[in-house]
Amino acid sequence: MAPTFSERIARLEPSVVREILAAAQAPGVISFAGGLPAPESLPSLTGLDVPSAYAQYGATEGEPRLREAISRYLSTIGLECPPARVLVLSGSQQGIDLVAKLFVDVGAPIITESPTYLAALQVFRLFGAAVHGLPLGDEGVDPDALGRVARARRPRFCYLVPTYQNPTGVSYGVSSRQAVARALDEAALPLFEDDPYREVSFDGDGPRPIASHLERASWVYQSSFSKVFLPGIRLGFLAASPDLFVPLVRLKQAADLHSNRVSQWLALSELESPERAARLDALRSVYRHKRDTFQASLTKHLGALAEWHTPNGGLFFWIRLKTPRDVVSLLPKAIERGVVFVPGDVCFPEAPAPAGYLRLNFSHATPEAADEGLGRLAALLRG
Amino acid sequence: MAPTFSERIARLEPSVVREILAAAQAPGVISFAGGLPAPESLPSLTGLDVPSAYAQYGATEGEPRLREAISRYLSTIGLECPPARVLVLSGSQQGIDLVAKLFVDVGAPIITESPTYLAALQVFRLFGAAVHGLPLGDEGVDPDALGRVARARRPRFCYLVPTYQNPTGVSYGVSSRQAVARALDEAALPLFEDDPYREVSFDGDGPRPIASHLERASWVYQSSFSKVFLPGIRLGFLAASPDLFVPLVRLKQAADLHSNRVSQWLALSELESPERAARLDALRSVYRHKRDTFQASLTKHLGALAEWHTPNGGLFFWIRLKTPRDVVSLLPKAIERGVVFVPGDVCFPEAPAPAGYLRLNFSHATPEAADEGLGRLAALLRG
Repeated sequence: MAPTFSERIARLEPSVVREILAAAQAPGVISFAGGLPAPESLPSLTGLDVPSAYAQYGATEGEPRLREAISRYLSTIGLECPPARVLVLSGSQQGIDLVAKLFVDVGAPIITESPTYLAALQVFRLFGAAVHGLPLGDEGVDPDALGRVARARRPRFCYLVPTYQNPTGVSYGVSSRQAVARALDEAALPLFEDDPYREVSFDGDGPRPIASHLERASWVYQSSFSKVFLPGIRLGFLAASPDLFVPLVRLKQAADLHSNRVSQWLALSELESPERAARLDALRSVYRHKRDTFQASLTKHLGALAEWHTPNGGLFFWIRLKTPRDVVSLLPKAIERGVVFVPGDVCFPEAPAPAGYLRLNFSHATPEAADEGLGRLAALLRG
Repeated sequence: MAPTFSERIARLEPSVVREILAAAQAPGVISFAGGLPAPESLPSLTGLDVPSAYAQYGATEGEPRLREAISRYLSTIGLECPPARVLVLSGSQQGIDLVAKLFVDVGAPIITESPTYLAALQVFRLFGAAVHGLPLGDEGVDPDALGRVARARRPRFCYLVPTYQNPTGVSYGVSSRQAVARALDEAALPLFEDDPYREVSFDGDGPRPIASHLERASWVYQSSFSKVFLPGIRLGFLAASPDLFVPLVRLKQAADLHSNRVSQWLALSELESPERAARLDALRSVYRHKRDTFQASLTKHLGALAEWHTPNGGLFFWIRLKTPRDVVSLLPKAIERGVVFVPGDVCFPEAPAPAGYLRLNFSHATPEAADEGLGRLAALLRG
């Protein structure tokens, strides 16, 4: 007799990206699929000296000094939040799990952008959310549409990635952020703002978080140390309004007691390092150059076949085929030819998804490999 | 208008232990409340050299070499499980979260020991489990009672901590393990075996895991690097039967993508260290000595007031007051006098809980502090 699983397991999707990334491990395969930082940009992990106190169990909320440093960082980007309302996470994926636990019952309505971050969509669906996707324009979601859906459906929260969004690269401007904040305030709709790409900016700093414009609505703001520091330490953080912070800490305790302290020490050292600003500048130069060489190859190989916006930050090009076609069924053939990508379909909350979108990561492959891979992709699309 | 939380938030208990631990931070307070390893037993974290590859994102299942080392370790304790069915966890608390997600719907029946591990009980309840506690005797739970409850209630799984149990210190003997395994096999009842204290043994090795005796029932076996290595790295692992392993990996991916790789490198170095056996022997000597001096103080101060079994492993004495009384209401007075403990009530699944039990950790306080603290506790009980 087979075990009886919870009903949520029927909603546990095999991650398409996971299957794709597995295929990408094969020798000779050029991957545009992951969101991996450039290997050459990652700091060294040698000669680490972690204080002996960090060997013991720690506080659920995180190391006090790290929470203070995060609070100071948030202030620099325009979000005032005391250290007492900063929670260290085991990567920002954990924040998605915690917020889903906080808000989502089976059938509970929520709002996301459409398209949106795939792994968030999967977690919200796992918990049974009824996801309503708001079309994402060049300036973000339409605040009026947000207000209408909020009144009609009474969603539990609204999940936005307003800065160099994954997958589109779209970044909301200041006035758009203010208008969205007003709509959230008017509807008393909690905001879950996911902001992992903010520091991966190529044309100046991104505008203040939407959360910083809120006057009444509850909010969670989260970010990650994975994109501009070290993915392998699995560390992120959230800040939240008081009503959400208390239950989130208890949910965090139930999930893993606290985040690992060696990683917290590394993150603290990074935030307190006098070299951080210079390191970030250098990193942005590396990524800007990678974006530019990638775009040159994209224009060369796919200029006649697809269109796109140049991303001002983040790690992805989001391209639309001029002649829409089913790119999911294209994927096995692409893997055969040694190139992988994320079919845009999986990023849309609605079904059927609009056809003909591809997400291409530009940060991981070398310029030479990227050019070769885009050539293979173009040949496949033409063939 | 206040946000609408999920219905599970109404079941999110403030952790009593958390409140107690917070009180224990005050200067001069002697804590018997936590499950903290002895600070002097924790390895150094200086001069760490982690390979640069560990800076990048890693595999959800964990590092291949670490999974192989864990598989070899499991073989030494009598549990044969290939590396392909080993999942690295962000501490064994995460395993509890994942297994709850796998099995528990609101109202789903499960079985635990009574008393049982508080933090597991809280997670199972958070997900809505209807917890049936089987009385824990000196040899474990009664296999016949287990079979009867399994047939009557069709529980989703059975959670057992059979080796130096938290809170009681009870360890199931070989024949008891075999009988429990038979009962699980006959009922096709999945086993969730939580085994974090196995290496904290004072009188020889504990018997093979119950999971190793199973012939048909599904199972998850989990353990931790927190008790005999480093709590601060928040690392544990599970092994599971094939039917449970696949969805557990996907749930792990949704929870935090993968566990931090710096910690995984430290755990691998520990498992592969030729000095590990000698280090564990030395650690057991330290803990055995702490247990003995603690018991001497316990006899001196509380011998007339309470009774207990001497634990052969683990980190706790579980004492029963000869004249039962409400120890929860005693706690604020104890904190006033500078001593804290875990009231046994919180460890029982049933309500009202049997009165007059206390869980006392003996591993963290120095022998002198423990003697002083037990003196304060005795004075309070007499007063």
